[in-house]
Amino acid sequence: MAEHGKAKRGIPPKSDFNAWYPAIVEIAELVDKRYPIKGMDVWRPYGWKAMRCIDNLTHAEMERTDHEEVRFPLLIPESLLEKENRLVSLLKRAREEGVDPSELRDEEEEAGFKKEVYWVKHAGETDLDVPMFLRPTSETAMYTMFPLWIRSHADLPLKTYQIVNTFRYETKQTRSFIRVREIHFFEAHTAHVDEACASRQIEEDLEIVGRLMQSMSLPVIISKRPVWDTFPGAWYTIAIDVIMPNGRTLQVASCHHYKDQWAKAFDMTYQNDEGETQYCHQTTYGMSERLLGAVVGMHGDDNGLIFPPSIAPIQVVIMPVAAHKNPDVLTTVESVSETLRQSGFRVKVDSRDLRPGQKYWDWEIKGVPLRLEIGPRDVENGNAFAARRTGGKEPIPLDDISNSVQQQLSLIGDELSNRSHSHVIHCVNRLNSLDQEIVDGQIYEIAFDGTDADAELLEKTTGLAMLGEALTPYETEQVCIITGKPTTRKQHIARMY
Amino acid sequence: MAEHGKAKRGIPPKSDFNAWYPAIVEIAELVDKRYPIKGMDVWRPYGWKAMRCIDNLTHAEMERTDHEEVRFPLLIPESLLEKENRLVSLLKRAREEGVDPSELRDEEEEAGFKKEVYWVKHAGETDLDVPMFLRPTSETAMYTMFPLWIRSHADLPLKTYQIVNTFRYETKQTRSFIRVREIHFFEAHTAHVDEACASRQIEEDLEIVGRLMQSMSLPVIISKRPVWDTFPGAWYTIAIDVIMPNGRTLQVASCHHYKDQWAKAFDMTYQNDEGETQYCHQTTYGMSERLLGAVVGMHGDDNGLIFPPSIAPIQVVIMPVAAHKNPDVLTTVESVSETLRQSGFRVKVDSRDLRPGQKYWDWEIKGVPLRLEIGPRDVENGNAFAARRTGGKEPIPLDDISNSVQQQLSLIGDELSNRSHSHVIHCVNRLNSLDQEIVDGQIYEIAFDGTDADAELLEKTTGLAMLGEALTPYETEQVCIITGKPTTRKQHIARMY
Repeated sequence: MAEHGKAKRGIPPKSDFNAWYPAIVEIAELVDKRYPIKGMDVWRPYGWKAMRCIDNLTHAEMERTDHEEVRFPLLIPESLLEKENRLVSLLKRAREEGVDPSELRDEEEEAGFKKEVYWVKHAGETDLDVPMFLRPTSETAMYTMFPLWIRSHADLPLKTYQIVNTFRYETKQTRSFIRVREIHFFEAHTAHVDEACASRQIEEDLEIVGRLMQSMSLPVIISKRPVWDTFPGAWYTIAIDVIMPNGRTLQVASCHHYKDQWAKAFDMTYQNDEGETQYCHQTTYGMSERLLGAVVGMHGDDNGLIFPPSIAPIQVVIMPVAAHKNPDVLTTVESVSETLRQSGFRVKVDSRDLRPGQKYWDWEIKGVPLRLEIGPRDVENGNAFAARRTGGKEPIPLDDISNSVQQQLSLIGDELSNRSHSHVIHCVNRLNSLDQEIVDGQIYEIAFDGTDADAELLEKTTGLAMLGEALTPYETEQVCIITGKPTTRKQHIARMY
Repeated sequence: MAEHGKAKRGIPPKSDFNAWYPAIVEIAELVDKRYPIKGMDVWRPYGWKAMRCIDNLTHAEMERTDHEEVRFPLLIPESLLEKENRLVSLLKRAREEGVDPSELRDEEEEAGFKKEVYWVKHAGETDLDVPMFLRPTSETAMYTMFPLWIRSHADLPLKTYQIVNTFRYETKQTRSFIRVREIHFFEAHTAHVDEACASRQIEEDLEIVGRLMQSMSLPVIISKRPVWDTFPGAWYTIAIDVIMPNGRTLQVASCHHYKDQWAKAFDMTYQNDEGETQYCHQTTYGMSERLLGAVVGMHGDDNGLIFPPSIAPIQVVIMPVAAHKNPDVLTTVESVSETLRQSGFRVKVDSRDLRPGQKYWDWEIKGVPLRLEIGPRDVENGNAFAARRTGGKEPIPLDDISNSVQQQLSLIGDELSNRSHSHVIHCVNRLNSLDQEIVDGQIYEIAFDGTDADAELLEKTTGLAMLGEALTPYETEQVCIITGKPTTRKQHIARMY
């Protein structure tokens, strides 16, 4: 702690985002990157608490929407992959050949992700008969079990989720929370009676995402990914991208509609009302620690982190000032902190024997949204002096402290949402023609209704990637940027993480 | 759900514990054992929720005692093992030769647990330069990082914990929660300025264990393990064994005092007040999903599980009765459930269109502590009819429902504690002489002050294992069962899981 003041001076300006981000995650003590495996950071208490606060928002949403939490084994036997491999290669061929998957014959092929998993082939001194891999995600594990749990329509919808560690052998450059090899991962998996019910699940997922993003004040673009960027085995993928400060987009969540494609591969059927055997229709919804990366990246400033109150590990830090001059200071601090804790706030009292400026810096770096100072004069006046991490200071009355603090935290949340909104307006611009200059750090909205080849041309010309199609089209017809044809299809192109 | 009635008839009598236990964990839907890796069960929602309730008790204790939660990587590079191997082999030799470890020269040797870990030697299509293993426990990972975090006495005590998945390549027969290959594990790791401070930590750990065991009404024996059963690298180990219904003991928790032994191996030092470099003294405290296994095993009966209210996933199930006869029934049920939820109880309303008897069975099997029935006459009388899973039924007033429910739950907790107490009295008997008959399912308390060879003789003669020395000795001198010498040292011998 004693070093934070010094450390602060080591924070690069946020305008140099690529230097600021990796520095701040360590200076604010979210993670320690010195663990001797690249891409596997140690979560320090403050970072882990922030992640747990995000998880708690997720748990609450899952409870509200009747999802049940499960916990599947980490290890998956290679032998279970057969079905998945067949499915993925079939869909891949169907796409390449532009035909319906049901028209194609089954051919086994290795799924690409085998190249990205960690393998367990030895245990103790034994060579395992069947190699196992560390889950990169749990479709294979879960869909092996779901058929045992689903018999009739009464067992549907099956809505499950888990929050677990998953693994990916990343060969690209790793970045804390953003690209790591052990991933703190949320995955919801559902099964339904038909395609329409599964589609409604996707709508519910998007509503949940919307609530989560709003509570964390994150600026997002929601897109139906282009076919070539659809999750293997999915009918379609909807991705939620946060617009980072440097204008690059970070996919923090995705929802996949599987139709009955996985169900057919895993023989996941149920008896309907009439006693007929039907295939289930499925969805998944994933999020990860990237949510924390987005919060860090989006809200922080030159002085450190800024946590949205909804997920701040410490929402309010209380500092006694000149406590030696009046014994009422410490008793007031104690009673205020107790009252706030009782009201459910996450509170920390900082009574360390340090200069106030030093303490301010510490909590500024750590992004605590609200600082309350209580000194002899405040006690006399029945006030606490409130300073918001987003700017602005004022006295607030002690006799209604919980409500006052709630108001202050709401102000901070609103301010962060406003900043995010401005950021979107600043970053996202319309591109009407390929002749227009592409500005670094900008995201472009385009009218586009071309083919895959047109998209490729677009990506090559602009140097940007296609995020996919906005869920809300243009209200009036526009001119497709490539083909010149009239269209209402709105798309975004950006530099992606 | 519709199958529970049938399933119930499939529950073996609890007197046949070895048949009852594996059956009930599946019938009550705690786990599914059909996942295709032996010893790696799927946690179903009900089982996982029970485990999370136990974890929440643990989190609360950790918060109360100022431990901070961290999260370390699952994978540990083999290269980090060197220090640990040296430490363990040194201590082993010291014990074998009966000398102080500091008198021995360092010699490298392979730690035994290498034979029990899962190895990752391949990632994607790459052979890894440095093999990694899945943590069986996190000493090696953590003590690689702690020296980076500890510089001066101001950084001490360092009190950390995590709740994570750990792995052990079990070759013995696996049993849900009791002996598994992926273990849901709690581990606290602390560092202190000296041996006395570390000893106080062990005392705090034992106080925490005491509170947890009491809140789950579990009957335990606490023992300082004999030297040969001390954790590798520990100065001493204190183990907490639950007395299972069949009289076998199940170690559910253990605390290890490491003195400065690991600190020396990992060069974990700090500057004291006088600026001198000192080695830290350390402790660990571990628990696992065995806690749930103990709860299942200890409290259940011929009709299913019985959850202590402190960790019951559902504490109260409310059943509307003959709701068609009076519309007030459903509104009362709704308002009671809302009131109870607001008071923090975990509540489920069962409005399924099934015979009441069927519903009773379902919740009996799942061990819900309290059932409330509300029918037309109850509404008229302003009562709910309360039935305790531990036996006993009575009407309770609706107008003070939260307090009444709390009282009912307390009665249930007390009843379970009484049963545990009786169980201890029934199972644990004094053994005064080796001539005495050893009865199956009994645990024996003995006065013992012999050598390791005497202990071996004792174990061979009785066919039981030494749990170790009770923390509270006899108040007056007794006669050692082997040597005949006077001693106040109290020990227990039992059949261990």
